[in-house]
Amino acid sequence: MTHPIDQRRLRAGIVGGGRGAFIGAVHRIAAQLDSEALVVAGALSSDPATAAASAADWRLERSYPSYEEMARAEAARADGIDFVIIATPNHLHLPVARAFLKAGIHVMCDKPLALSLDEGREFGRLVQDSGRLFGLTHTYSGYPAVQEARALVADGSLGEIRKVHVEYLQDWLMEPLEQTGQKQSAWRTDPARSGPGGALGDIGTHAHHLAEFITGQTVDAVSADVTHFVTGRRLDDDANLLLRFSGGAKGTLVCSQVCCGEENALSIRVYGTRAALEWHQQEPNTLLFMPAGGATQVRRTGKGFASPGALGATRTPSGHPEGYLEAFATLYLRFAADVRRVARGEAALRDYPGIEDGMRGLTFVTAALDSSRDASRWTALRA
Amino acid sequence: MTHPIDQRRLRAGIVGGGRGAFIGAVHRIAAQLDSEALVVAGALSSDPATAAASAADWRLERSYPSYEEMARAEAARADGIDFVIIATPNHLHLPVARAFLKAGIHVMCDKPLALSLDEGREFGRLVQDSGRLFGLTHTYSGYPAVQEARALVADGSLGEIRKVHVEYLQDWLMEPLEQTGQKQSAWRTDPARSGPGGALGDIGTHAHHLAEFITGQTVDAVSADVTHFVTGRRLDDDANLLLRFSGGAKGTLVCSQVCCGEENALSIRVYGTRAALEWHQQEPNTLLFMPAGGATQVRRTGKGFASPGALGATRTPSGHPEGYLEAFATLYLRFAADVRRVARGEAALRDYPGIEDGMRGLTFVTAALDSSRDASRWTALRA
Amino acid sequence: MTHPIDQRRLRAGIVGGGRGAFIGAVHRIAAQLDSEALVVAGALSSDPATAAASAADWRLERSYPSYEEMARAEAARADGIDFVIIATPNHLHLPVARAFLKAGIHVMCDKPLALSLDEGREFGRLVQDSGRLFGLTHTYSGYPAVQEARALVADGSLGEIRKVHVEYLQDWLMEPLEQTGQKQSAWRTDPARSGPGGALGDIGTHAHHLAEFITGQTVDAVSADVTHFVTGRRLDDDANLLLRFSGGAKGTLVCSQVCCGEENALSIRVYGTRAALEWHQQEPNTLLFMPAGGATQVRRTGKGFASPGALGATRTPSGHPEGYLEAFATLYLRFAADVRRVARGEAALRDYPGIEDGMRGLTFVTAALDSSRDASRWTALRA
Amino acid sequence: MTHPIDQRRLRAGIVGGGRGAFIGAVHRIAAQLDSEALVVAGALSSDPATAAASAADWRLERSYPSYEEMARAEAARADGIDFVIIATPNHLHLPVARAFLKAGIHVMCDKPLALSLDEGREFGRLVQDSGRLFGLTHTYSGYPAVQEARALVADGSLGEIRKVHVEYLQDWLMEPLEQTGQKQSAWRTDPARSGPGGALGDIGTHAHHLAEFITGQTVDAVSADVTHFVTGRRLDDDANLLLRFSGGAKGTLVCSQVCCGEENALSIRVYGTRAALEWHQQEPNTLLFMPAGGATQVRRTGKGFASPGALGATRTPSGHPEGYLEAFATLYLRFAADVRRVARGEAALRDYPGIEDGMRGLTFVTAALDSSRDASRWTALRA
Repeated sequence: MTHPIDQRRLRAGIVGGGRGAFIGAVHRIAAQLDSEALVVAGALSSDPATAAASAADWRLERSYPSYEEMARAEAARADGIDFVIIATPNHLHLPVARAFLKAGIHVMCDKPLALSLDEGREFGRLVQDSGRLFGLTHTYSGYPAVQEARALVADGSLGEIRKVHVEYLQDWLMEPLEQTGQKQSAWRTDPARSGPGGALGDIGTHAHHLAEFITGQTVDAVSADVTHFVTGRRLDDDANLLLRFSGGAKGTLVCSQVCCGEENALSIRVYGTRAALEWHQQEPNTLLFMPAGGATQVRRTGKGFASPGALGATRTPSGHPEGYLEAFATLYLRFAADVRRVARGEAALRDYPGIEDGMRGLTFVTAALDSSRDASRWTALRA
Repeated sequence: MTHPIDQRRLRAGIVGGGRGAFIGAVHRIAAQLDSEALVVAGALSSDPATAAASAADWRLERSYPSYEEMARAEAARADGIDFVIIATPNHLHLPVARAFLKAGIHVMCDKPLALSLDEGREFGRLVQDSGRLFGLTHTYSGYPAVQEARALVADGSLGEIRKVHVEYLQDWLMEPLEQTGQKQSAWRTDPARSGPGGALGDIGTHAHHLAEFITGQTVDAVSADVTHFVTGRRLDDDANLLLRFSGGAKGTLVCSQVCCGEENALSIRVYGTRAALEWHQQEPNTLLFMPAGGATQVRRTGKGFASPGALGATRTPSGHPEGYLEAFATLYLRFAADVRRVARGEAALRDYPGIEDGMRGLTFVTAALDSSRDASRWTALRA
Repeated sequence: MTHPIDQRRLRAGIVGGGRGAFIGAVHRIAAQLDSEALVVAGALSSDPATAAASAADWRLERSYPSYEEMARAEAARADGIDFVIIATPNHLHLPVARAFLKAGIHVMCDKPLALSLDEGREFGRLVQDSGRLFGLTHTYSGYPAVQEARALVADGSLGEIRKVHVEYLQDWLMEPLEQTGQKQSAWRTDPARSGPGGALGDIGTHAHHLAEFITGQTVDAVSADVTHFVTGRRLDDDANLLLRFSGGAKGTLVCSQVCCGEENALSIRVYGTRAALEWHQQEPNTLLFMPAGGATQVRRTGKGFASPGALGATRTPSGHPEGYLEAFATLYLRFAADVRRVARGEAALRDYPGIEDGMRGLTFVTAALDSSRDASRWTALRA
Repeated sequence: MTHPIDQRRLRAGIVGGGRGAFIGAVHRIAAQLDSEALVVAGALSSDPATAAASAADWRLERSYPSYEEMARAEAARADGIDFVIIATPNHLHLPVARAFLKAGIHVMCDKPLALSLDEGREFGRLVQDSGRLFGLTHTYSGYPAVQEARALVADGSLGEIRKVHVEYLQDWLMEPLEQTGQKQSAWRTDPARSGPGGALGDIGTHAHHLAEFITGQTVDAVSADVTHFVTGRRLDDDANLLLRFSGGAKGTLVCSQVCCGEENALSIRVYGTRAALEWHQQEPNTLLFMPAGGATQVRRTGKGFASPGALGATRTPSGHPEGYLEAFATLYLRFAADVRRVARGEAALRDYPGIEDGMRGLTFVTAALDSSRDASRWTALRA
């Protein structure tokens, strides 16, 4: 007999993502992509009119003027949502999560986790106490080539890791866009809504997560040079960092939102004693693998020789490119499977980023800023 | 007041796509991706057990043992499907479409259109007589870079077109896979289910469509050398063609399913008197534009300078790669908009491939085979 | 004891290459690059003033007003040239070669061999009767990656060859440049100086040679569509061809000098039953090797796993790019070694293109033109 | 009347480069490539037998057992060398240069300049006092695309420079090769012959020079993390650095000789307020130019729109790839022109790297090592 939870799509709600937002629509597409869930309810904006209009755009069944009301109402319905998606500016992650976790609803949340290490620790306790599932959308770990990269390091194919270079470059904040009223840039450059990190928090945390995810090591310490190049900007828009890893590797991390001509240029290279690998997010279906003394291998997504984790993150045969939305969806696919497991009384796998990854990101931002304020002194990452 | 059709997602049904199939799941994802439609019903297999199991996998609300019954039942329901997706082997396209068109239901159909020019002509009459919408999933025209390429030709940026090279190469039929019972290859190499073209019908029609779509010209005549390299195979697995276009351009088309190492390598180059362009499906977010005397431009999807058609086919900011599923979804997005228009009593735009494209594809396969049988004689494409 | 020929650089003379020419300077650089030879004498132009001025530019020790005088005078000197380089328009290849061969001087000649099959046959007899060495600069066979490609086919790594695609595209004749008095284009579009093939002779022969060189098969027959797109041009500037190879492979060859944006885009792909390979002249140090079922390998020039022939054509460690001049020089390096062998009374190796390659090229041009004139009828290549 | 110096090739001698060496043969090819000079004399090894055998390999006219004797003898000859090439390990640069400068002979020297800042200062005085020409082969500045990059920055096309990332990665010292007796690695890892920098001196100085050459700014300070990954190695084989430039730009420099799979991967990206550029040494004929808001431009070497400096460094039409040897030769071409100018009594242009560049490199190595020893403290570059 199929368990009732397996006879239907999961029901999801979403907070944030109204007109003018970017990441909300991405969450909606990703959550629904594999037919595991349907977004049925939303509190899409703190402005009630925008919330209602946006919900109509998306043809949601239920629209709420506030997340508090949504949490209350959905918890009370027999056909209420199984999980909520938090796609708000950073300062709301914690309060929104608190409302839904307390209402017994699983949470999938955008990154970075919260505004500060203190908030992060409170977040961790909340999730722990709630017994509910929590996922953090460090999207890039959902790419099959990234899963493959992690598997290659884990199985020893690279030998001992010596060196890592990771970078994440954009150009959309080259000019003081936030002074034009543009919504995306306004909150991302506002310490009260974004937290202390600008580029560091928005994209540096992705680069940091990717490096730790693939290498299976943690960044122990950083020496950082953090800058804002645009006059009047209140948060950093650029950072260069030296890294030291728990396993002895050394590295560099470069992130910037003022690199002219760069779109969303996240890339990583990892060099070991036996082999190296290289990946570029903008051509995500190609992973280069360079064995010592041999020819570089172009390990394309979907090929039969890939690891189970990578193949499980692939929907189409090789050569049918999947991209950002599919990577995002893979996190939701795994989260949905956990929601079903919990509903069936089984143990969750938690094979997607969560609280711990979020805390790591906050220690990264904190240490980078501390280091930069102190003449790039080597600074440990401490939770 | 919003029209009722605009207050809900469209309801779709699907025929074909059961366990072991490839393209059915792609249609399901694509149809749902933009939250415009939900696949709620299906006749997923001609084998009733497979049909039921597959419907459970997908958590469909209604599963039917046959498409005939599905057409009947859905037409009778107040909440019946708005359109049906045909994702069966080629020989069923016409009969399935007939059932649903006669039941008054719009049809979105996989390509190639049908088994023969005769079938194609009948198909055209059926659609015409039904007054229903018909879309054909020539997927690759849904890519933003392809939309951009067409716009660049149309606005004269390339000048007069002189030369076209298009190719579509795969390797999955290098060995006699069909003799192992593999489902995909079995029907694609069976004239009764696939029609007279093997690689020509399966992927050659895509290459041909792409060339005509971008150039805005038709292929007038071909000189073809069609081959099956795998012993015992009943249909072609490889073809080389010379092309002549209606506007005076000349070209080459190469398609093969036995090209070792090739995944899904569709690419095109178009050379004009003022500029040229180049596109590769496997890195679909990059379009090269080569103006005479100038530097080649890398026109990336999502950049502000793109044409409206291209930007309308893009969901994410530049650098967040979209792929095959999104290109597919763009055809569904436009089709869904037409379904809504028709429901509201407005004129359909038909800005996606349809019957005429399907007929062009059938003339292409027919002419190529005729030419090859007659020592590669130049053969006109005639409907 | 070292033979006297091995105690000095060889002495070379050159015919053609005066001011305004392109390929003469290339020959000079290539002949001298490996310190095996020094260009000391020349008849650089049929115009005596240009000849003298050009010889001063190059600081040649001896300048002659005509090639006839040069042949006579050099043959009479104790320190006369060991070999002559022919870098003239095509119609002079045969008469110049005749003068030097009859004077007992080895000949290195630019391609295509001659104006016609008749001339080619006479050329062959001349060389044969002279007992002198003859080399033809099919430059692209000198690239290490091309040597490697040939070795991979020869050792069976590709299995049986099924399909070849070769192309050579340029844009420098997009406009009627020859009507402006530009020297390069004037003779190349003049049947009296270039022979019956335009793009076919100038670059098509390179593409044809490359395909035969790598596959070790000959092109048996072609079906050709030959065009001149520029009004008033007297020779073809564009051709599309279907190919059939002696070993059963099929293929396509595309050459054009009117492809906007293309510089010198010679590339080839060869597909076998076990593996495939791909090479692009513009990034010549990379050879892609695609084994069935495996990851594509990026076989870079200079890596230890390369074949002896490829390594012997490499001067620098991998990652120090070599290019066109070095490929050219490799032909001279081998030719010089043969000149020394002959001087020492040893057998020549003839491991560089020669008369037979030149004859193959002439049959290619002849067959392509014949086929195109006869509605692209399949036409055999016959000497 | 042509000056006598312009009626002949220059005569060059070389010190170093005997059997087993790498860079000597590169100098020989480069010096001769454009027919401006001929290498006629050499002291190719400190071992007299090797010196003699190597000179015979190269067919030099005159071979010397020591550089001292060569300086003396050549200075005394009427047809003595015009300039000497120093291609020895680093510790010999200064003494060899001293001998030839004092003999009145111009010097072209490999990099890095010398073992220490003290040596460098002495070197500068020597050159100054001698009145002779001195060139330093920072090869990569000879590439046309690098010349173009510098011109684009200089003419303001990039606006104000904000960020630079430069890296130079190799893998040839991944293992303790120096313990096997391999000649190249033995001296490069020996402080007495190489100086205090390992990878920093050998390739880090190239990366540093490239960044300063293109941006026209100096690196003011570095924060460095310098490592040797191979046990027992006496010099660094890896370094990560943060950079601050004189014009306010920030940057990162990564150099390593233990990066598995990397051949000679020198690359640079420069981001300004109006545009950015990117160049990779392994595909040196392509320069990417990214204007704000526009499409990235692929500015290929040899195209008509290039700057005079870039075109002057190009020998062949676009699409005929030039490489490392040609870049090297361009430095020699300019140096030879200066030798002729001086001979004619004209002012030298000095449009190639010299003493000042060498001193900058020494300050770079010194500051990087100082910084790394002091916990990556920001350290100024001071001569």
